[in-house]
Amino acid sequence: MPGIDKLPIEETLEDSPQTRSLLGVFEEDTAAISSYCQQLFQAMQRIYHAQNELSTATHLTSKLLKEYEIQHFPLRGDDEVMSSTLQHFAKVIDELSSCHAVLSTQLADAMVFPITQFKERDLKEILTLKEVFQISSNDHDVAINRYSRLSKRRDNEKVKSEVMEDVYTSRKKQHQTMMHYFTALNTLQYKKKIALLEPLLGYMQAQINFFKLGSENLTQQWEDFLTNIGTSVQKCIKHYNMHIVYNDTCY
Amino acid sequence: MPGIDKLPIEETLEDSPQTRSLLGVFEEDTAAISSYCQQLFQAMQRIYHAQNELSTATHLTSKLLKEYEIQHFPLRGDDEVMSSTLQHFAKVIDELSSCHAVLSTQLADAMVFPITQFKERDLKEILTLKEVFQISSNDHDVAINRYSRLSKRRDNEKVKSEVMEDVYTSRKKQHQTMMHYFTALNTLQYKKKIALLEPLLGYMQAQINFFKLGSENLTQQWEDFLTNIGTSVQKCIKHYNMHIVYNDTCY
Repeated sequence: MPGIDKLPIEETLEDSPQTRSLLGVFEEDTAAISSYCQQLFQAMQRIYHAQNELSTATHLTSKLLKEYEIQHFPLRGDDEVMSSTLQHFAKVIDELSSCHAVLSTQLADAMVFPITQFKERDLKEILTLKEVFQISSNDHDVAINRYSRLSKRRDNEKVKSEVMEDVYTSRKKQHQTMMHYFTALNTLQYKKKIALLEPLLGYMQAQINFFKLGSENLTQQWEDFLTNIGTSVQKCIKHYNMHIVYNDTCY
Repeated sequence: MPGIDKLPIEETLEDSPQTRSLLGVFEEDTAAISSYCQQLFQAMQRIYHAQNELSTATHLTSKLLKEYEIQHFPLRGDDEVMSSTLQHFAKVIDELSSCHAVLSTQLADAMVFPITQFKERDLKEILTLKEVFQISSNDHDVAINRYSRLSKRRDNEKVKSEVMEDVYTSRKKQHQTMMHYFTALNTLQYKKKIALLEPLLGYMQAQINFFKLGSENLTQQWEDFLTNIGTSVQKCIKHYNMHIVYNDTCY
């Protein structure tokens, strides 16, 4: 139904079938938004939890490498090179886990928080207002019903005036809750765009920061380290191969 | 015990208490390496699984954004801008999920695979050889025992010769299995360095590739997109605020 961008608040007093039918369209649209946002919320939660777990696991690995020094290896021998290499790995991996932790925090603040707010505050508010509106509509229907039966019998003036008072207050209540409900549904049509775009912008900005942090501060440093380590590992492998050749000649 | 870097294979025939004591030290060291590698293996598995989950969750988010177009929203209205913006987000996030998937694969090949091989092949081989060596040692002890009882009694020549044959073959077997076991324990002292360094190098290289891929191909492209999107979101927020002001004046 293109072109309709809001529910007419001025029609709430008349409350015609046309207005009710239009309300149905807005309610259907809101249900579709809720369902879509719920799915997006779950996917974003999954990203956040995975990022958190990655940060924790990376930190744990760095911690384990740091602890190599204090392990009880009875044959430690010429282990200083190995120890210092693992300490260096531990340091670099710890720096990476810090970048991951920063990314996690930014995702929590700029992605998970706004979509959670939209879901828990805005979408829940609509549900509450819908319920309140339905209750006041029912109350109004009951009052109208009492009034219509009243006119057939010949009740006393006191009862008549009570019933009419009831119709008046319940219609006023229904009108008020309907205006509130319409306003919230109209507002949601604007909010939904921000609700979808804001967490995505937060996600992208956090990723850009992460790549900047990683590539500017770490990559060059890492590559120098890996070049150095390469030599050391080559030595290890050479040593190992010599050992294999020695053992083969022994047999 | 620094300075000792291998078990003397040439001492396996004599099998003196000194050799056995040295074997004990190597066995203790091997147990410490196994335990340390098991911990590192678990931490690396955690990293790999988290990275995999991150890759999947990112892909799912991109897929959801792509599906915005085919959602049934009864009030679609002027939704083309929103649709094309979400399609753009979907594309960029999908590119990011591809980078994550490449990182996952590289971690599987260059980190998880070598440490799993070391654990499942090299460390298990040591355990098997230890068992085989213990069985042949026991067999030898039984043969020696029979032989020592034999010399006290006066058995016939056939039994004597059988028992001596048994001592000979079981000692030969024990000698062979001990040589194998010693060789494997010595080899492990060289392998352990490679076993620790290889998955770490694989991990670092995969991370460097990931940052390069991310920062070279994506970041500039993303920033241009975010600048464009910024304007669009500003428009949304302005529109939304106007709506709020309008509603406030309506009440």
